[in-house]
Amino acid sequence: MTRKPAIDPRSGDVFTWPVRVYYEDTDAGGIVYHANYLHFMERARTEWLRHLGFEQDRLKEQDGLLFAVSRMLVEYLKPARFNDRLEVGVKILRRGRASMQLAQDVTGQGGERLCTATVRIACVDAFSLRPRPIPSVMLKEIDVAD
Amino acid sequence: MTRKPAIDPRSGDVFTWPVRVYYEDTDAGGIVYHANYLHFMERARTEWLRHLGFEQDRLKEQDGLLFAVSRMLVEYLKPARFNDRLEVGVKILRRGRASMQLAQDVTGQGGERLCTATVRIACVDAFSLRPRPIPSVMLKEIDVAD
Amino acid sequence: MTRKPAIDPRSGDVFTWPVRVYYEDTDAGGIVYHANYLHFMERARTEWLRHLGFEQDRLKEQDGLLFAVSRMLVEYLKPARFNDRLEVGVKILRRGRASMQLAQDVTGQGGERLCTATVRIACVDAFSLRPRPIPSVMLKEIDVAD
Amino acid sequence: MTRKPAIDPRSGDVFTWPVRVYYEDTDAGGIVYHANYLHFMERARTEWLRHLGFEQDRLKEQDGLLFAVSRMLVEYLKPARFNDRLEVGVKILRRGRASMQLAQDVTGQGGERLCTATVRIACVDAFSLRPRPIPSVMLKEIDVAD
Repeated sequence: MTRKPAIDPRSGDVFTWPVRVYYEDTDAGGIVYHANYLHFMERARTEWLRHLGFEQDRLKEQDGLLFAVSRMLVEYLKPARFNDRLEVGVKILRRGRASMQLAQDVTGQGGERLCTATVRIACVDAFSLRPRPIPSVMLKEIDVAD
Repeated sequence: MTRKPAIDPRSGDVFTWPVRVYYEDTDAGGIVYHANYLHFMERARTEWLRHLGFEQDRLKEQDGLLFAVSRMLVEYLKPARFNDRLEVGVKILRRGRASMQLAQDVTGQGGERLCTATVRIACVDAFSLRPRPIPSVMLKEIDVAD
Repeated sequence: MTRKPAIDPRSGDVFTWPVRVYYEDTDAGGIVYHANYLHFMERARTEWLRHLGFEQDRLKEQDGLLFAVSRMLVEYLKPARFNDRLEVGVKILRRGRASMQLAQDVTGQGGERLCTATVRIACVDAFSLRPRPIPSVMLKEIDVAD
Repeated sequence: MTRKPAIDPRSGDVFTWPVRVYYEDTDAGGIVYHANYLHFMERARTEWLRHLGFEQDRLKEQDGLLFAVSRMLVEYLKPARFNDRLEVGVKILRRGRASMQLAQDVTGQGGERLCTATVRIACVDAFSLRPRPIPSVMLKEIDVAD
């Protein structure tokens, strides 16, 4: 398996969100607990949607829809530690009718990649949790970078 | 402040639930993260209610009620560490119309107290989150030890 | 028990830190999970120390000391929900030789108090976890408001 | 992508560990938060190693080694909910000199698969976090099923 950056830093299409590592994020190995990178990535996706003009609480209440992770490939390259300041990237790779695929990188202060993921997000009904089409107003904002 | 055991081990009225410390529970200090003792205590309260015959998912769906922590005094006496096997106690101290007060201790394998808490649980409406009377069928089961 | 604000908003001595509620912070009751307010409070304490010039990773490595919660009284007044933007306050109440007592409030966007706590923080040896005097350089910075 | 069970239930080589869903595991969507399945899987791996005779706290102290997740492919098939009782499986797929690959399934009470993962675990030095050979005494116990 080659390790090409999932998110190309030369592209202008990457949304990034800063995250600070607190004690809550670490484990007794002295590093960030592996599951907690998923928290960081979800924060960045939330802020990316907010940046595009979409608030998920309103999407749930007004449109009855949720975005749920349906598949995730995560690679842990280097550990992040307590007090580190990280950047979490979001870049759209593919956009389907009811799902999208994102590349997400977590990088350290020196720009080194610590964790990289490909994440498939499904648009689902908030009640039944069954797939639903992504609203067209949203599709317009989510452009796939070339 | 004196440090009398919140739960008297000589009493027969203590419900205890075993908890194993996994990596998820620890932090970079090498010990259990302080907020995670609250997880352990909530697991023990859930199992105590189950032991008394009450399933909280059914209480929510059928009776529209939740139990929520409204106040908590927690003392951290000694740290728990990765891989420790703990016991978490639940003992009812006081029972009101819409709330109850519990004593909860977390003890280590040698019986030493690591963390002790007094927890007030409110019975609330699952939708409005406003106080509601504890169901009478439940009050019968929740006896206050003397 | 009266419910005087633990942190007086008219005082200039309150450090505040913004926190956004993400999915990771909520539970199936639709609100912030009670233990997760402790995460928010710890983030605010970390940023308060950073604001005063103290980085906890350096304190651990160079001075071999940690700050650990030794006692906490938490009151849950109103629930916070997904997507809420909160403010978390830190105000020092008392300062001992090896510990300090802080008032911490979590407030919502309208300024309403959601959760209030009194937290005792102990300065401990990073290895033995036994009490240690707070460094004098730190004591100078931590002034008790009147 | 076909969805063959990562863990073959007909094989005798699957270690399973029960997990109960508590409030701490859920989110405001009413279901288990996606990152928390990784907690469940790590608990099962810990118990699997314990079952084989290996305690990770001793491995760290005596041998100076840790097991760390280096890569993970997770598929979320159906949501788990508050109060569900789950089974988490561990089955070894491949065994290298310094890493192993595991299949892990989370199944519900009716045996339905909710979440399935392929997890690569690296054996690393507890201090430097660099790859280290898996101890030979351990390799003997970790047999790859055919």
